[in-house]
Amino acid sequence: MINVYELQNMTKSVRDRIMKRSQNDIDQVKTKVEEIIAAVKSDGDAALVHFAKKWDDPEFSLAKLKITDTDIKEAYKNTPKEIIDKIKEQISLAQKFHKIQKERILNWEQELEEGIIVGEKWTPIANVGLYIPGGKNPFPTVQQILAVAAKTAGCPRIISCISAKGKNYEVLIAANECGIKEIYRVSGAQAIAAMAYGTETIAPVDLIAGPGNTYVTAAKILCQSKIAIDAPAGPSEVLILADNSASPECDLNKKAKYCAADLLAQAEHGTDSVVVLLTDSKQLAQLTKDELEKQFEKLSRKEDIQKSLATYSAIIITHSMNEAIAFANDYAPEHLEILTKNPEEILKQINHAGSVFLGLNNPVALGDYATGINFCLPTGGWTRQSSPVGVWTFMKRVQYSFVTKPGLARLCPIVQTIATVEGLDAHRHSVEIRLE
Amino acid sequence: MINVYELQNMTKSVRDRIMKRSQNDIDQVKTKVEEIIAAVKSDGDAALVHFAKKWDDPEFSLAKLKITDTDIKEAYKNTPKEIIDKIKEQISLAQKFHKIQKERILNWEQELEEGIIVGEKWTPIANVGLYIPGGKNPFPTVQQILAVAAKTAGCPRIISCISAKGKNYEVLIAANECGIKEIYRVSGAQAIAAMAYGTETIAPVDLIAGPGNTYVTAAKILCQSKIAIDAPAGPSEVLILADNSASPECDLNKKAKYCAADLLAQAEHGTDSVVVLLTDSKQLAQLTKDELEKQFEKLSRKEDIQKSLATYSAIIITHSMNEAIAFANDYAPEHLEILTKNPEEILKQINHAGSVFLGLNNPVALGDYATGINFCLPTGGWTRQSSPVGVWTFMKRVQYSFVTKPGLARLCPIVQTIATVEGLDAHRHSVEIRLE
Repeated sequence: MINVYELQNMTKSVRDRIMKRSQNDIDQVKTKVEEIIAAVKSDGDAALVHFAKKWDDPEFSLAKLKITDTDIKEAYKNTPKEIIDKIKEQISLAQKFHKIQKERILNWEQELEEGIIVGEKWTPIANVGLYIPGGKNPFPTVQQILAVAAKTAGCPRIISCISAKGKNYEVLIAANECGIKEIYRVSGAQAIAAMAYGTETIAPVDLIAGPGNTYVTAAKILCQSKIAIDAPAGPSEVLILADNSASPECDLNKKAKYCAADLLAQAEHGTDSVVVLLTDSKQLAQLTKDELEKQFEKLSRKEDIQKSLATYSAIIITHSMNEAIAFANDYAPEHLEILTKNPEEILKQINHAGSVFLGLNNPVALGDYATGINFCLPTGGWTRQSSPVGVWTFMKRVQYSFVTKPGLARLCPIVQTIATVEGLDAHRHSVEIRLE
Repeated sequence: MINVYELQNMTKSVRDRIMKRSQNDIDQVKTKVEEIIAAVKSDGDAALVHFAKKWDDPEFSLAKLKITDTDIKEAYKNTPKEIIDKIKEQISLAQKFHKIQKERILNWEQELEEGIIVGEKWTPIANVGLYIPGGKNPFPTVQQILAVAAKTAGCPRIISCISAKGKNYEVLIAANECGIKEIYRVSGAQAIAAMAYGTETIAPVDLIAGPGNTYVTAAKILCQSKIAIDAPAGPSEVLILADNSASPECDLNKKAKYCAADLLAQAEHGTDSVVVLLTDSKQLAQLTKDELEKQFEKLSRKEDIQKSLATYSAIIITHSMNEAIAFANDYAPEHLEILTKNPEEILKQINHAGSVFLGLNNPVALGDYATGINFCLPTGGWTRQSSPVGVWTFMKRVQYSFVTKPGLARLCPIVQTIATVEGLDAHRHSVEIRLE
């Protein structure tokens, strides 16, 4: 079901396959996605209705595009209180986390040298679009985590595109609880195109955030000459670092149970999900493999899990945890679990990862649902150069300076010399004229 | 030479033309740039030599691709001490500015609720590529400002691609003074492709920063499925907000002189540069126009300036400064000068701008050369959703969490309820198994 390798004996082709994972099949869908974008650009709302009818809901019409107050009321009426309460709890935890981020985003002003004052202020992006993927089930959690981050940033206009298929009551409740007033039923690449270029109904945005399938990711990448995006997010992935440490509280059998459960949880996201266990313990590797096969039997998404485990996943045995850490940094995983003796020590050596889960009581699922951290993360190695979605995603800096006359006089010779090197005499002149 | 409009009477087509500026002619060069990228991907170094021979230096050969110690020595030998000293001063000022930014980039850890500890740490991007444009003259200033930002971030590998045309002594000195050890002579879209995909000589990078012409910008956008970029940067632009305030130190004539000088300085960047003056004073508008025509006569890049002023530029008279401020926020300029009575008050109302220059003694040229602020800024309205290049550009966040057993027990019911809504039972199971 899942292959076991020894890192030292791994062939280059296996290593390359594991490192590459399932990301970046974007070229395969590029032409189709370009067609969708072109259709939305030229036909606007009509294209959205056309695609929704074709792929999501044969009964779709323009009247269904924008969510109404009646839709929201219907959602609350048809959703058990228990679920509504838990969505509210999720939002409350997410708000706590993102509030701390916001407090770290500091405006500043300082005198660099006498008469040269510089500063920066952070301002929210005015128009942001959130893409909430659909599927067999609704994903209210994605809605709330993105909305909380954007709201905490202070974005004045936040819109959501949710699946045009199904009722999505829980998504509507999550959006409403976060204060999102502008929600559209439009799925896939057409949602990205609509938010980027605008239609008669949907005014365009400046930035789009949110995960999606290959079509959505391709559309986000292809629309980047028009709008900013969070980061290209593809199939979800976890890398687990586990050593042979054991305790009375948690022996190796128990640890193997946890590892297996977490690998399976990641694998159920889809056939292209990626799970990797790195361990210096042959025993843990074997126990995890056995456990995985056992736990698998009880789960519902067997087909997805089986494909995911067989295709892009691996249990890898290393000579040492240092070797495992080096592999993890090369891999730059979306999710990284550290189930070792001193997880904090290993964290210090981690340079590239989206979200790191320390300790035995902290499966990725906790971050997905409850801890309040943001779980919209770069995948496919993009944690090498990008960050988790957060308050920063929805803000940007405005840099400023103020210079006194003596400050100008002090800096003038630099401009005179270097502007001459660069052949820009009007630049030099704009400084000199002020000192005449 | 430059058109004067009244904002109230401006036609939609004029307003649209001014708002659109010269940005985004990327579609026109797309096919050509895609060919260049494909050639670099398939032929590597050979493609770089081919393009350099064709466009930059008929004598180019592979031996010239990588800058050697001998090249660096030659640069110092052939550059006047005065210039070297001024480059060092630029670097020193830039280091002061970027050090303040670095001090604002804070790791944090906090207990969100009992037993739920969350935190974030910032880590540098491991491999970054700087693109230093060439032209009639070398641009050492671009080299130093990008290198200082990346070095301050702590990036372990920083490479520079400089023009394959000419000697570029000052650029080499700037790179060397900043501690950049890996420098290549490769211009244009081929440099971007080489840094994104790698060649035999140039190992690929994770992020590319730096301004360039339309080909370079197009290549950066087109390589975004492989690497991150700073922001799409096109032709340079300035918007000046000036009121009719005057003082004994600076009467309206003098202010008009400064406005004219700054508009001209921006215009000399190229035929596609964009300059806009917004003022509530008809008198200042007229005086600036007159001054501009007068000062123009003394400058060397007359042809560039004339085209830039005639095509994308304007002097716009508004009824009030509030109207001017609203226009400025819609415009989202790269550079914004505020030459008014209380520039700090107006700054508070500015939401979208790259770099803001307050006061009479602070032309954009000062920021370009001497203040130490970063002048690699988003253009073409991209300050709506992106920031100036800075230390943040070269770093990213790693998010982490630690949860105790009681913390896990507290969060478990949320996972149980919502994972069921979302149909992810292996997620639920991975939490429940830890509490059995």
